Amino acid sequence: MTPEAAYQKLLEFQRETAYLASLGALAAWDQRTMIPKKGHEHRAQQMAALARLLHQRMTDPRIGEWLGGVEGSPLVQDPFSDAAVNVRAWRLAYERARAIPERLAVELAQARSEGETAWEALRPQDDWKGFLPYLRRLYALVREEAGILMGVGPDPLDPPFLEVYDALLDGYEPGARAKDLEPLFARLRQGLRGLLDRILGSGRRPDTALLHRPFPAEAQRGFALELLRACGYDLEAGRLDPTAHPFAISIGPGDVRITTRYYEDFFNAGIFGTLHEMGHALYEQGLPKEHWGTPRGEAVSLGIHESQSRTWENLVGRSLGFWERFFPRAKEVFPSLKDVRLQDFHLAVNAVEPSLIRVEADEVTYNLHILVRLELELALFRGELALEDLPGAWEERYRAYLGVAPKDYKDGVMQDVHWSGGMFGYFPTYTLGNLYAAQFFAKAQEELGPLEPLFARGEFRPFLDWSRTKIHAEGSRYRPRVLVERVTGAPLSERPFLTYLEGKYTALYGL
Amino acid sequence: MTPEAAYQKLLEFQRETAYLASLGALAAWDQRTMIPKKGHEHRAQQMAALARLLHQRMTDPRIGEWLGGVEGSPLVQDPFSDAAVNVRAWRLAYERARAIPERLAVELAQARSEGETAWEALRPQDDWKGFLPYLRRLYALVREEAGILMGVGPDPLDPPFLEVYDALLDGYEPGARAKDLEPLFARLRQGLRGLLDRILGSGRRPDTALLHRPFPAEAQRGFALELLRACGYDLEAGRLDPTAHPFAISIGPGDVRITTRYYEDFFNAGIFGTLHEMGHALYEQGLPKEHWGTPRGEAVSLGIHESQSRTWENLVGRSLGFWERFFPRAKEVFPSLKDVRLQDFHLAVNAVEPSLIRVEADEVTYNLHILVRLELELALFRGELALEDLPGAWEERYRAYLGVAPKDYKDGVMQDVHWSGGMFGYFPTYTLGNLYAAQFFAKAQEELGPLEPLFARGEFRPFLDWSRTKIHAEGSRYRPRVLVERVTGAPLSERPFLTYLEGKYTALYGL
Repeated sequence: MTPEAAYQKLLEFQRETAYLASLGALAAWDQRTMIPKKGHEHRAQQMAALARLLHQRMTDPRIGEWLGGVEGSPLVQDPFSDAAVNVRAWRLAYERARAIPERLAVELAQARSEGETAWEALRPQDDWKGFLPYLRRLYALVREEAGILMGVGPDPLDPPFLEVYDALLDGYEPGARAKDLEPLFARLRQGLRGLLDRILGSGRRPDTALLHRPFPAEAQRGFALELLRACGYDLEAGRLDPTAHPFAISIGPGDVRITTRYYEDFFNAGIFGTLHEMGHALYEQGLPKEHWGTPRGEAVSLGIHESQSRTWENLVGRSLGFWERFFPRAKEVFPSLKDVRLQDFHLAVNAVEPSLIRVEADEVTYNLHILVRLELELALFRGELALEDLPGAWEERYRAYLGVAPKDYKDGVMQDVHWSGGMFGYFPTYTLGNLYAAQFFAKAQEELGPLEPLFARGEFRPFLDWSRTKIHAEGSRYRPRVLVERVTGAPLSERPFLTYLEGKYTALYGL
Repeated sequence: MTPEAAYQKLLEFQRETAYLASLGALAAWDQRTMIPKKGHEHRAQQMAALARLLHQRMTDPRIGEWLGGVEGSPLVQDPFSDAAVNVRAWRLAYERARAIPERLAVELAQARSEGETAWEALRPQDDWKGFLPYLRRLYALVREEAGILMGVGPDPLDPPFLEVYDALLDGYEPGARAKDLEPLFARLRQGLRGLLDRILGSGRRPDTALLHRPFPAEAQRGFALELLRACGYDLEAGRLDPTAHPFAISIGPGDVRITTRYYEDFFNAGIFGTLHEMGHALYEQGLPKEHWGTPRGEAVSLGIHESQSRTWENLVGRSLGFWERFFPRAKEVFPSLKDVRLQDFHLAVNAVEPSLIRVEADEVTYNLHILVRLELELALFRGELALEDLPGAWEERYRAYLGVAPKDYKDGVMQDVHWSGGMFGYFPTYTLGNLYAAQFFAKAQEELGPLEPLFARGEFRPFLDWSRTKIHAEGSRYRPRVLVERVTGAPLSERPFLTYLEGKYTALYGL
């Protein structure tokens, strides 16, 4: 078989797998939006059957044969060619899937599912003791899996794994390593703490009560749809539905759906939640359709994905220019805002306040929440912290970095779903997303000129087109850190993010 | 391998296939309710990938080996045992799937899909000439397929195929044969024509204009939901959504969804449409959950399915008792009905009027529409009618049986989607459904006493429970005609249906 023929076989087989897998994406969307209460049991069975099928296909020995027929051939000589990108990613996925024993895969899937269910039940009861056994099991299984993945190693274009945590991190942010994150997060912390102290010292307290007036859900939905259209989300290639925990999901090219939730007494959740998920969806809608079903056409990492959501939620959606455009309309849609001045509204949606809950945090304090989690995860996987000591360590770090400490577990160590699903190594991608976002945005302004005046005129196309060309269209062609360097001309740094915050909050708080 | 072990293998393999197939049911539901416009192309690819997978699984040679290990064993000695029912159905499906060459299967799938698309475009343009080539291709392919299925033969418990049309019919109504349908439909026609003549001769013209007052969609939806709840449809195990062409679909136990459409200037479509689909859904919700994913747990035929939908739409939903219960509430929900008397409303929703369109036909004329189609299909497949002569033959029979004739193709020979999808042999199941329904209902009244007084008190449970026990819970245990005999003590006959119409319309029209 020629390398071309082997590559063709791989393309066909993997695309077919992708079509089948995308039925799972539809089922996942339905499960969180439309499914009737009694449909969940069957849905779990459908998902399990699909997972078995996909695992079979991912470990099919023919993949190994076809890969062997392409690797080393001229077809993959240029490491950034479509074929090279795909073959490398398929090889890694194949080796990883085959390295995990079926016993472990099944146990992990079960433990994740049971852990999330337990968390949902035990968190409201603040039952840390009850939750701990689930966490223990998950930790043990994830650690075992990470040990195996250490043996497989990373993509050959990425740095080696130096510790077991790297193997976890790499599953969410390919190429990220703990030894690089630690100094980066340390510099970030220092900058954020400095800014936070100045903001708190300013004595200025924005009136956030105006965000808690009546905002009828139907009006929010209508307004959210207007914003989606204005920003460039294609509603003929997606839809917006209510859900409990908002998400964006790609079912296929031409079908990228988003969800949000409406609090009738709080403005931010529905509107900024929509803009956040829209950012994810704009990325997915901008991926190269002709490469759908292959790694080349996929989002490159969770961090880059999050950069797009945070860009539209914060850098665009919380800018003054954005609300110069849309606040007049918001006043029409929500009579409760009639007497509010633009400046007060803009300050309110950007109010900074150290708090206990990550998902409600402002742009300045958000990454301190992530920092706590990264430090705890590192300590856990380096054997420096026992699971039962997590709550104490959590409290200590919250006090140190945010100056607040939880009175209970549910708003402390049990607040996030991630650990209950065994997702250790996921949190850092949130902060990476914020840093990528600011670094991309600064470069876009360098190339396109100041963007806020465009937003103020309702012109989002130039910036979206820039993101499409520079980031979305690249799919997974480049490693995340290479993509950042190619787009911005510099390695990832905390500076653009700190500069952005500095400028924004100096103006907002009159520092 | 012991018969027990072989049967266990079959169960596991076929259940797994059923779980995967049910992802296709979800995708089909989504495609007709939720999907964004640009998602259709990808959906077609998903469905094609799933179809390829399912075909592979259905023809997997291991099925043949396992079947061979069970057949003839004591496990399947009782032909009505779960194992015997399943093994027989699996064998037939296996032989049928393997007998159809892949080339033909692919061509047919393509021709069906293209035919339906062409029909959607050409029908509004009344373009019969443009549609004819599609129909020709479909007819040729379906005929070829039917020839192959003739060779495979029917379920051993059913009568043999005597002509090629039987092989088509059997795909929708197992065991039904043209030679039995012809005299049955002839007697039915005679009875219907006699009743119709008396109704038309009565000179009575119900005021149907009252059904064309304003009925806001939101109010219809609310009212429809009330009816669903009252009748026993479990809304925690299903949902109701708007769509263009209403349907009911089972995604799995605990998840049986229905759809309807609301015309804001016509009462019947939304409300009776909902009751019709609810009837289908009640059947699916009543199938034995423990047998899900095996033939034993499936609906036995389209005719029996239709009997349940027509029961709830007509025998229940168009009864006076039903509206004694719900008309007062309808007046609250729809102010436009405020001045209408129950008797006039009841007469209006039962008004008899020969017309051109099957789906809008009343209970008396409906089966004459089906009769026309059956006669034409038989003539086509017996080589007595050429496709290009269909419009003329259509007009002639409409004139003879209904006294009306279409002025165009779109409300004539092109009105139904079925032929454009190659579904020849499907139509008779509609009439069989009406006949089964009346025969079941008569028996239920024999056993439970008069049902309308119960309906008038909102008591639907006794009749639903009766249907559940006698029909739904049996799944595919008995052949359709055997089920009818077991439940009613008599073979299928047109008499109960004619008796029902006679009684109802004599009272309504004062004959």
